[in-house]
Amino acid sequence: MTLLDPDRLFPSDPTQRKLSRELYNGIKSLPIISPHGHTDPRWFAENAPFPDPAQLFVTPDHYVFRMLFSQGIDLGALGVPRADGGQTETDGRKIWRLFAENYYLFRATPSRTWLDHAFQDVFGLNEPLSAKTADAYYDHIAACLTQDDFRPRALFERFGIEVIATTESPLDDLRWHKMIRESGWEGRVVTAYRPDNVVDPETDNFRNNIDAFGALTGCDITTWDGYLDAHRTRRAYFKSFGATSSDHGHATARTENLPTSEAAALYTKALAGSCTPSEAEAFRGQMLTEMARMSVEDGLVLQIHPGSYRNHSATILARHGRDKGFDIPMRTDYVTALKPMLDVVGTNPDVTIIVFTLDETSYSRELAPLAGVYPALRLGPPWWFFDSPEGMMRFREAATETAGFYNTVGFNDDTRAFCSIPARHDVARRVDSAFLAKQVATGRLREEEAHEVARDLTYNLVKKAYKF
Amino acid sequence: MTLLDPDRLFPSDPTQRKLSRELYNGIKSLPIISPHGHTDPRWFAENAPFPDPAQLFVTPDHYVFRMLFSQGIDLGALGVPRADGGQTETDGRKIWRLFAENYYLFRATPSRTWLDHAFQDVFGLNEPLSAKTADAYYDHIAACLTQDDFRPRALFERFGIEVIATTESPLDDLRWHKMIRESGWEGRVVTAYRPDNVVDPETDNFRNNIDAFGALTGCDITTWDGYLDAHRTRRAYFKSFGATSSDHGHATARTENLPTSEAAALYTKALAGSCTPSEAEAFRGQMLTEMARMSVEDGLVLQIHPGSYRNHSATILARHGRDKGFDIPMRTDYVTALKPMLDVVGTNPDVTIIVFTLDETSYSRELAPLAGVYPALRLGPPWWFFDSPEGMMRFREAATETAGFYNTVGFNDDTRAFCSIPARHDVARRVDSAFLAKQVATGRLREEEAHEVARDLTYNLVKKAYKF
Amino acid sequence: MTLLDPDRLFPSDPTQRKLSRELYNGIKSLPIISPHGHTDPRWFAENAPFPDPAQLFVTPDHYVFRMLFSQGIDLGALGVPRADGGQTETDGRKIWRLFAENYYLFRATPSRTWLDHAFQDVFGLNEPLSAKTADAYYDHIAACLTQDDFRPRALFERFGIEVIATTESPLDDLRWHKMIRESGWEGRVVTAYRPDNVVDPETDNFRNNIDAFGALTGCDITTWDGYLDAHRTRRAYFKSFGATSSDHGHATARTENLPTSEAAALYTKALAGSCTPSEAEAFRGQMLTEMARMSVEDGLVLQIHPGSYRNHSATILARHGRDKGFDIPMRTDYVTALKPMLDVVGTNPDVTIIVFTLDETSYSRELAPLAGVYPALRLGPPWWFFDSPEGMMRFREAATETAGFYNTVGFNDDTRAFCSIPARHDVARRVDSAFLAKQVATGRLREEEAHEVARDLTYNLVKKAYKF
Repeated sequence: MTLLDPDRLFPSDPTQRKLSRELYNGIKSLPIISPHGHTDPRWFAENAPFPDPAQLFVTPDHYVFRMLFSQGIDLGALGVPRADGGQTETDGRKIWRLFAENYYLFRATPSRTWLDHAFQDVFGLNEPLSAKTADAYYDHIAACLTQDDFRPRALFERFGIEVIATTESPLDDLRWHKMIRESGWEGRVVTAYRPDNVVDPETDNFRNNIDAFGALTGCDITTWDGYLDAHRTRRAYFKSFGATSSDHGHATARTENLPTSEAAALYTKALAGSCTPSEAEAFRGQMLTEMARMSVEDGLVLQIHPGSYRNHSATILARHGRDKGFDIPMRTDYVTALKPMLDVVGTNPDVTIIVFTLDETSYSRELAPLAGVYPALRLGPPWWFFDSPEGMMRFREAATETAGFYNTVGFNDDTRAFCSIPARHDVARRVDSAFLAKQVATGRLREEEAHEVARDLTYNLVKKAYKF
Repeated sequence: MTLLDPDRLFPSDPTQRKLSRELYNGIKSLPIISPHGHTDPRWFAENAPFPDPAQLFVTPDHYVFRMLFSQGIDLGALGVPRADGGQTETDGRKIWRLFAENYYLFRATPSRTWLDHAFQDVFGLNEPLSAKTADAYYDHIAACLTQDDFRPRALFERFGIEVIATTESPLDDLRWHKMIRESGWEGRVVTAYRPDNVVDPETDNFRNNIDAFGALTGCDITTWDGYLDAHRTRRAYFKSFGATSSDHGHATARTENLPTSEAAALYTKALAGSCTPSEAEAFRGQMLTEMARMSVEDGLVLQIHPGSYRNHSATILARHGRDKGFDIPMRTDYVTALKPMLDVVGTNPDVTIIVFTLDETSYSRELAPLAGVYPALRLGPPWWFFDSPEGMMRFREAATETAGFYNTVGFNDDTRAFCSIPARHDVARRVDSAFLAKQVATGRLREEEAHEVARDLTYNLVKKAYKF
Repeated sequence: MTLLDPDRLFPSDPTQRKLSRELYNGIKSLPIISPHGHTDPRWFAENAPFPDPAQLFVTPDHYVFRMLFSQGIDLGALGVPRADGGQTETDGRKIWRLFAENYYLFRATPSRTWLDHAFQDVFGLNEPLSAKTADAYYDHIAACLTQDDFRPRALFERFGIEVIATTESPLDDLRWHKMIRESGWEGRVVTAYRPDNVVDPETDNFRNNIDAFGALTGCDITTWDGYLDAHRTRRAYFKSFGATSSDHGHATARTENLPTSEAAALYTKALAGSCTPSEAEAFRGQMLTEMARMSVEDGLVLQIHPGSYRNHSATILARHGRDKGFDIPMRTDYVTALKPMLDVVGTNPDVTIIVFTLDETSYSRELAPLAGVYPALRLGPPWWFFDSPEGMMRFREAATETAGFYNTVGFNDDTRAFCSIPARHDVARRVDSAFLAKQVATGRLREEEAHEVARDLTYNLVKKAYKF
């Protein structure tokens, strides 16, 4: 028995299946380029063993605990920390059993695919996880985790990762990245510049963050010019740790191109904590354009991830804090929102702006038409809830005819779940193979072209777009 | 010749077709649970023969007469009553002939599938309906309708209905439900609480309705507390006739959680007929939250059906009145709209709120992410225009990866067309079989899991969600 | 080697492929009806040879140059004129080489299909276009263009065009149409009435246009009544050159039905150049309703094409002017927008209003439900970015179940690229065959019905809807 069908995600039509398999065979072993994600650099710096199976697979994975919670399982019973520091489950085996009993809930979800992939390929398990096999799973994984072969660096190498980017705030001292560099280990782990906490006036402790930002950079953050200089300084520092991109998680895609005096006045209000919500949004929008201008100077790729209503449940925000699976996609406009920024840098082919969406209706209506004409614009891969077989296929079907393949940037895993990385890249490679197989089988693409595109989507486009 | 292909709606790929067939064979004979619909309880109370074929299939079916009207056929010629009581066609055979001549218009619509299913399975017809066969059809169906085997209770039993819910206003005396109960017939027909006409300040005769509501319940409807008590009283009465759910057909999904004083003030305005449109919407939104609170107390499942622009044509509203096929879906927001209510009851696993949509873009963007985390929330099946093979498949493809199967609630037929009930459930079973077959054929689900899920989607989930 | 797979765009499943082929064989040779497009009537009037290959395939085709521009190729290098009259590339061979080198960018786009179709079927080429074959292509096509068989009228006949509509402004003197008529050539080339430049108060030179409109018609355009009379007069003139339709490219679908005095007051403001943006939109909306009223009188079909944000890039608008590939689709509402007009003419079966969209979410949510009930309303085919295999299939899958086939109007090519016309119609015929094959293979339609529908979609519905 195996958990994984070797032909999974390939169409069952024999013509398309055969083509899919051939295309996939040409790319399945290519190195993993992971330009956007949230793994913890400390793992690679310290190379300590991962803790128990529940800490590896359940407690930190919002895909996993949100589904369990949706069926009435308390987050505390899964070990998710409480905001008030109150007691939650700490017995890994208990958490694991709860997870195993309810594993059927994940049927037909990408989490199921990623987990089964990790169970089989990383840990060599091949009986389905269930209440019956829960303890055997737990014991087996726990035993593996004590071995050197399952430490972060060993897995990094085994996964075939050529380069991985983590994400840090400008206030981060990048100590783990320093430690990795100084360790002499050859794995390539780079940072990315994620300045939300010094860009969004509505962040908790915004003023304190800005003060720390000033202290760290030696710039006079009481002025607009000094504040922009602080960004320039810190971007350069991040670049020295391999950063090739910045990343911006705003609620909307709004950009602004205000006269300097207006931008400076908004900044003054932001410092004073007196922005209205609309002014705060305008300030964030202005900062996207400022970041794009800095990209012209320093070459960092600009990534925009809008459209999530963060921390939707007041109850859970109070009980467990932020990022507990309650971020919900919203309708998102790009056409009017991006125009101010695009009027500044959009026709400059030396700038790269990668746009992501949680609103699939924008693929064919807005994003593909925009990326299909603006040289600075590229389409990020399907993101978050859409990092899934159906989501990827919808993206290719909706965006390719207008944007082509070459205005897209390959795959991002965007994950904190280390063991899911090879699984996620594998899903993307399989779905792209299936998409291309259909193109060939229906006479839209020649077979040799499909092989070339498959390699481009898997490897070349991501390296080029992210400047690795 | 037959009207129905035994493999209809199964993929033609042999692998998937075989799997679809096997999955379908395991569920095709399961009893029908119909938790949400609009059949007339009087049918089952009186058990009188249905009138002529046109009255059974054409005149009352908005799917049918709207399509005929769209091609220039006057509603009066189809027997649809006029608002002014003016003359419309009463000759069933004439109406039937008009319908038969234009039956080609229904090609590739779900109505065609439902009608052919009823013609063949209920009435034993097997030549296609057309101008040529119109009279033979009419004579045959009319003859059947005189037989006892074609009376409502006999059909109910023949259709394999385990339980069916009708929908009544709080002002309804439930006399037909009483008559069914007293008849000793064992068919299970329950009511559902649909209070729109005493909840929506913009309903015609709202104040009169509220007065009647007070008279019926003995509550002091001049006060907010008394009004809420009247709902509690009437919900209990409906429960005594088997109701397990309430149902709410608002224009938007807006909910509110106002302080009591503000809610009471809105109610006073509603009573006085002085709500602005925005206040009326706020009042309806507040009442959804109140109903959710009552659900915590009495266990009724809350169903929300938003997003229809009712009676779009002023011309037809004036000529033929409400509900004449001119209800048009609108863009619908759920993320901000449902938040006030979800902040009150959303994380309570003992409450069940079932949300429907007419805006398919919300499946993957809003509804699956919401239902995939809030324990109180479940996704209703594709509704109305999307109660169709393509609509069902889009729903499964868009919602399952994020919400899974177990945050959905099986199938609703939502119909007034009695003979279409087995056809509609059959379509749902076939499409779910096809969806699951694809999951198995592409290595995402094991075959034995698919069989279990098929039974859950058809039978177990609906019983559980609707508390039957 | 050939560029075109004879089975292209047919599903690879053998059952569906066989059915697709049979259905396609029944329609592939039907004459082309092209009721909506932007070919230049001068071609057919003068029948001069087309200029060089670059002028035929690259420089005027916004699909082509936008994709090349998106990858950093300057529009000037493709010969696209500058707004300031500055120098751009004039060497056709150089332009062609640049295009050929970058032809891989069009993989999986409809442009690739259209171009390969023209290369093979019109010019007899069968090696893929690339840097290597660029010169051979150029020489071969250039040589063909000198031959009589490749002049516009010869191609018109070879393409099997039964009738084609061009689009002219009311201010156009229709001289080329007159010249065609007087030439004795039997090709049927008709005009269409596109009054945007005398209807949209925000057009450049609106007042001058209106003055010219008055001069041309002899109507007193200083009054609302006179202005409407000018339209009536000019519509009649266009009808005398074969026009059967008017065409309206507004930013939104907004319609209005204002009292005459308000409409007249808006017109006065428009003449004075003092409309606010909102008043300008209201005026355009009022004019749609006025055009619909005139349709009742003169029978012209009303076409509405909303939803494009025109000339999105300020940079490109300044450098190269309008219509340079920077028109981006926007979210578009139809339900509330069309109601005022539909309340006036929507239930009149003698009027035909054809609605197009660039917002695919409106197919199933708004447009199919509206067209499925209003006798005056028909759905235009997938348009612009959605004139593509995936776009067409999404349209059929989303719209057919609610609107049926008979509330749609066949195919529009909407093109300026003459050689793409047979390719585009061929794609539509293939995709419709594939859609119908799936209907038959999944038991939803009988085979003989599918053949009839295929002919209706290709030929009968378009002739009927556009009154040819």
